[in-house]
Amino acid sequence: MSEYTPLSELGEFGLIKRINEKIELRNASTIKGIGDDAAVLEPQEKQIVVSTDMLLEGVHFDLTFCPLKHLGYKAVAVNVSDIAAMNARPTQITVNIALGARYTVEAVEELYEGIRLACESYNVDLVGGDTTSSRAGLVISITAIGEVAKGEAVLRSGAKVHDLVCVTGDLGAAYMGLQVLEREKQAFMANPEMQPELEEKQYIVGRQLRPEARMDVVYELKELGIKPTSMIDISDGLASELMHICSQSGVGATVYKDNLPADAQMLETAVEFNLDPITCIMNGGEDYELLFTIPLADYDKVKNHPDITIIGKITEASEGVNLANKQGQSFPLHAQGWRHF
Amino acid sequence: MSEYTPLSELGEFGLIKRINEKIELRNASTIKGIGDDAAVLEPQEKQIVVSTDMLLEGVHFDLTFCPLKHLGYKAVAVNVSDIAAMNARPTQITVNIALGARYTVEAVEELYEGIRLACESYNVDLVGGDTTSSRAGLVISITAIGEVAKGEAVLRSGAKVHDLVCVTGDLGAAYMGLQVLEREKQAFMANPEMQPELEEKQYIVGRQLRPEARMDVVYELKELGIKPTSMIDISDGLASELMHICSQSGVGATVYKDNLPADAQMLETAVEFNLDPITCIMNGGEDYELLFTIPLADYDKVKNHPDITIIGKITEASEGVNLANKQGQSFPLHAQGWRHF
Repeated sequence: MSEYTPLSELGEFGLIKRINEKIELRNASTIKGIGDDAAVLEPQEKQIVVSTDMLLEGVHFDLTFCPLKHLGYKAVAVNVSDIAAMNARPTQITVNIALGARYTVEAVEELYEGIRLACESYNVDLVGGDTTSSRAGLVISITAIGEVAKGEAVLRSGAKVHDLVCVTGDLGAAYMGLQVLEREKQAFMANPEMQPELEEKQYIVGRQLRPEARMDVVYELKELGIKPTSMIDISDGLASELMHICSQSGVGATVYKDNLPADAQMLETAVEFNLDPITCIMNGGEDYELLFTIPLADYDKVKNHPDITIIGKITEASEGVNLANKQGQSFPLHAQGWRHF
Repeated sequence: MSEYTPLSELGEFGLIKRINEKIELRNASTIKGIGDDAAVLEPQEKQIVVSTDMLLEGVHFDLTFCPLKHLGYKAVAVNVSDIAAMNARPTQITVNIALGARYTVEAVEELYEGIRLACESYNVDLVGGDTTSSRAGLVISITAIGEVAKGEAVLRSGAKVHDLVCVTGDLGAAYMGLQVLEREKQAFMANPEMQPELEEKQYIVGRQLRPEARMDVVYELKELGIKPTSMIDISDGLASELMHICSQSGVGATVYKDNLPADAQMLETAVEFNLDPITCIMNGGEDYELLFTIPLADYDKVKNHPDITIIGKITEASEGVNLANKQGQSFPLHAQGWRHF
C-alpha cells in the first residue's frame, strides 16, 4: 500500500529541502541558485533574455486529464519556447507554485519531477521560486532566462519583403489533442466505468500534454549558418503569431494553404470532429513550434530540412496578411487573441 | 457619474496596449522591453540577481481593505526588497497577473498604476509579463532582476563570530497594522454603517498596506564604505530570518530585547490587542526591513545612524540563537516558517 504525506506534515522548509535535494546546476553562469534572497547569475559578455508565463488550473490546464508530471514539464517547455523564439539558449528558470492544502507531498514531488526532467532536457538550472498555498486551484508561474551573444537575438520586428516564412514541425495537433481529451472527459463523467480510448490518438494527445520547445531547431539553424530575420513561437495559433510578426515588422505576408504542415492523425481527427483542419492549424495554438522568416538566399539550406516547412513569403505591408489557395485566391487573415475574459 | 469598462470590451491586446503606453524605461541595461517573446537585457560586466514572489488573493492580501494601487506597489516593493537584501540595485521586473472577468479596465489600471509608481520610485523597468484570466481570485507573480558588481553580492551565509547584528527601521508594525485592519473589517461586516477608525493607526496600517524596500539603506551603506557580511530582508519575522542567517553562516547569535526597534503606535496597539510586543517584533513579519551583519570594526560608522539599530552580536554556533533580556537571561529562539498549509 502506498503512503501519502499531507503537506502540512512536512511544512515549508521540509518541502523546499526535499525539492532542492534533487536539483543539479548545469550552467557556468549560475553562481548561486536556490537558498538566498535571490539567485546570482553571471552572464559575462552575453545579453540575457527574460520571459515569464503563468498557468492556472481551470484556465490553462485541467488536472482531470493532465498528469502533474506532464504539467510540470509543459510549464517549463512553454517558457523555454519563448527563449528559443529569441534565438537564445535557456540557462535558468524560477518557479512559483501555489497549491491547495489537499495536495500531498507526493503530488508536489510529481510536479517537480516534471520540472526537473524539463530542466535536464533543456539544460536549464532551477535557481529560485516560491511555494505557497492557494485557496483555489493550482497556479504555476515560471520565469525563464536565457543567454544570447550580442547582436544574435531575433525579434519579431525584423522580417523583410521577399523573406521566406517558415514553420517547424506540424501544426494543429495540440488543439485536436485537447478536443479528444475533452471528449473523453465528458464520456467518463457520463459513465465512470468507461475507459478513455486514447491509443489511436497518442500523437495528438501527446502534443497537447507534453509539448517540446524547439531548441533543436534553434541550434540547427545556427549550424546551417542561418540567422532568422524574425521569429516567434506559436502559442496562440499561426494566424495570430504571423500577424504579430507582420505588424511589428511593418510588412505583409502570404501563406499557402497547401504548404501548411499537418500530421495525418490531426487531419483524421479534425474530420471526425467535424472541424476544418485549416482552422485548427491557423488558430489552434499550443503547438509551441517556431514561426520564423529567413532571407530568400537561404532557401537551399532549408528546402529539404525534415523539420522545417516553407509556408509562404513576406510581402509589402499594403498587401496585408493572407492565406492563399491553389487556385490563386487570397483571403485576409484575422488576429485572434485569447478570449479568456 | 464615472464609467467603467468591462475587460471583455477591451480584450487582451487592447489591455496590453493601454498598460504599455504608460511604461517608461530607465535603465541602460534594458535593450528591449515588453512586446516580444522575451525581454533583452545587457548587464555587461555585472552579475545579475533574480528573485520571484507570488501573491494570491485570500492568502496574501484581502481586497476588502487593500486598495489595488497599494497592492500593485507592494507587490513590486516586496520583490525589490529581496534584491536589496542581496546588496544589489534593482533594474527590471516582469509581472504576471491573473484576474477574474468581474474586473473592470479601470481596476486593472489602478493595479498597474501602483506597479508603475513603484517602478518609478525604485528606478526599475517593467519589461515583460502576462495578463490572463483567473476563475478564482487575483494572482500577482513578479520576478525582479538586479545588478551587482562582481564580488559585491551579499549572501545569507557570510556572518562571522563577533559581527554586529543590525536591522533597519522598526519592527512589528506591519503585523499590528494587519490586526487593526482585520478588526475594522469584522466591525464593518457586523455593522456596514460603521466607518473604519484608522486615523490613529495610520502609521502601522501604512506599514502593512504599503511597505517600502530599504534600497535607501543599501545605497547609504555603500556610501559609508560598509559591506555587510550577510543580509536578508524581514518578510517572515526577525526570529525566522535570523535563524536563516545563523544556519547558513554556521554561527549563533544573541539579540537584546531592549535594543529591538519599535514604533510607539505599534507598542500601544499591541497592548490594546493584548499581544506581547516582543512576539510581534520577533515573529510578525512583513516589515520588509533589512537584517544584516557587519564587522565589529564598522561600529562607529553605524552607531548614530537614525535608520539602523544594532540589536545584537554573532556568536559561536554552539551558543545557539538567543534573545537576551536586561537581567542577562537568554532564551533560545525558534524558527517559524509560514503555516499556510
